[in-house]
Amino acid sequence: MEQANKDRSLVSKVMDGLVTGIVEEKYGAILPPQDVLSKEFDVSRTVMREALSMLLARDMLDVRPKIGTRIRPMSDWRMIDEDVVNWRFRAKPDPLFLRDVIEFRILIEPRASAQAAARGSAADIAAIREAFDAFRVIRPDEPGYQTADELFHARIVVASGNQFFKQMAAIIRGALSTVNPIVSQKEGLWEKAVSTHQRVVEAIERRDPKEAEIASLAMIDFTAEGIGSNFTPEPPVHG
Amino acid sequence: MEQANKDRSLVSKVMDGLVTGIVEEKYGAILPPQDVLSKEFDVSRTVMREALSMLLARDMLDVRPKIGTRIRPMSDWRMIDEDVVNWRFRAKPDPLFLRDVIEFRILIEPRASAQAAARGSAADIAAIREAFDAFRVIRPDEPGYQTADELFHARIVVASGNQFFKQMAAIIRGALSTVNPIVSQKEGLWEKAVSTHQRVVEAIERRDPKEAEIASLAMIDFTAEGIGSNFTPEPPVHG
Repeated sequence: MEQANKDRSLVSKVMDGLVTGIVEEKYGAILPPQDVLSKEFDVSRTVMREALSMLLARDMLDVRPKIGTRIRPMSDWRMIDEDVVNWRFRAKPDPLFLRDVIEFRILIEPRASAQAAARGSAADIAAIREAFDAFRVIRPDEPGYQTADELFHARIVVASGNQFFKQMAAIIRGALSTVNPIVSQKEGLWEKAVSTHQRVVEAIERRDPKEAEIASLAMIDFTAEGIGSNFTPEPPVHG
Repeated sequence: MEQANKDRSLVSKVMDGLVTGIVEEKYGAILPPQDVLSKEFDVSRTVMREALSMLLARDMLDVRPKIGTRIRPMSDWRMIDEDVVNWRFRAKPDPLFLRDVIEFRILIEPRASAQAAARGSAADIAAIREAFDAFRVIRPDEPGYQTADELFHARIVVASGNQFFKQMAAIIRGALSTVNPIVSQKEGLWEKAVSTHQRVVEAIERRDPKEAEIASLAMIDFTAEGIGSNFTPEPPVHG
């Protein structure tokens, strides 16, 4: 146990040293080989491998055969602990949690949709359309519905071009996993889901940020009604 | 190394089992002692201790002398990986990163301020005032300025009562650590910082959500100008 603790704190120190080197652009695009790094930090290869695997798990590095360990763009570094998000959404949602989730989505997604319309690349927008076309043909009780819906929402935050919004995809995914099973049980809500999603896609394709934002608000509002939330989410007061 | 990998995947499995028990409310408020849990999961005490320490580090548990290992409220579980946030903000900020940070703050903080005004407890609001009174008497070049500013902003997201906004405190703290050194070098900006912060506090104290939101927007806008950002952050288009 004591040895394990010592190793852990050593791994933390090595991680910190590696990241310092990375943010100071000491290494360039590709990290030196593990044995070189082990010597540089004066630690065993096991400790170095552990430190590297912690950075790998956070999307800070990737390993390319024949090329080596590449440093990923900082905008990819994962600020969200997806384990905790997944665990949090696995618990039975209480009304306060649902309120907080909807309040959060209602801030992030409409703004992300507006930005997708304003500055998403043609490829980003085509990817949103593609996800919508897959989503619209799956009924809520069919396998793949949840995955198709998640992909649609994730592609909107990616198209926003804002790295923080992109990071929030895990929370939006959790929110969808919580509300979809409730919404999909209700009669007639599937058609409504398809039409509200469609309005968002079309506004983004028309490069109309204002309409994309309003359509996204309407899409989330409809979900809030669907789960019988007893609070009315308010849009921001300024405008 | 192989043994280390095997232990890691075992630790992951045990973590997952523990969390499943927690979200299914199997344990109540206090976890059974470590040796009981080790037996339940049929793993060594070392593996169990490691799994528990991972949950501790994520604010999911705390250890109370004489009481035992308490399960923390789920709203405290840390969804943000603060290491990655700190590393990310340690790098020299590029213009795109600054733009993204400001866009993110301009969504979260004004809405959190409005909610603090609408539903913050008297104690929450007194804590904001206290943080402001500490902040207003420290000059930007004095030690403690950054900490006082961070505390002020953190208390606003806490007072919002929304657990997701609260989680974003680490990102807001990172943003402040990036923009404050730039802003504080400019003549006359300190007085402006104090007055824009004051307007937010007073609106929250008057329980005026609309004014709190507008004041918070103005506070962030002034920062965006201060860092010479060449983009004008737009407030959401609806209202």
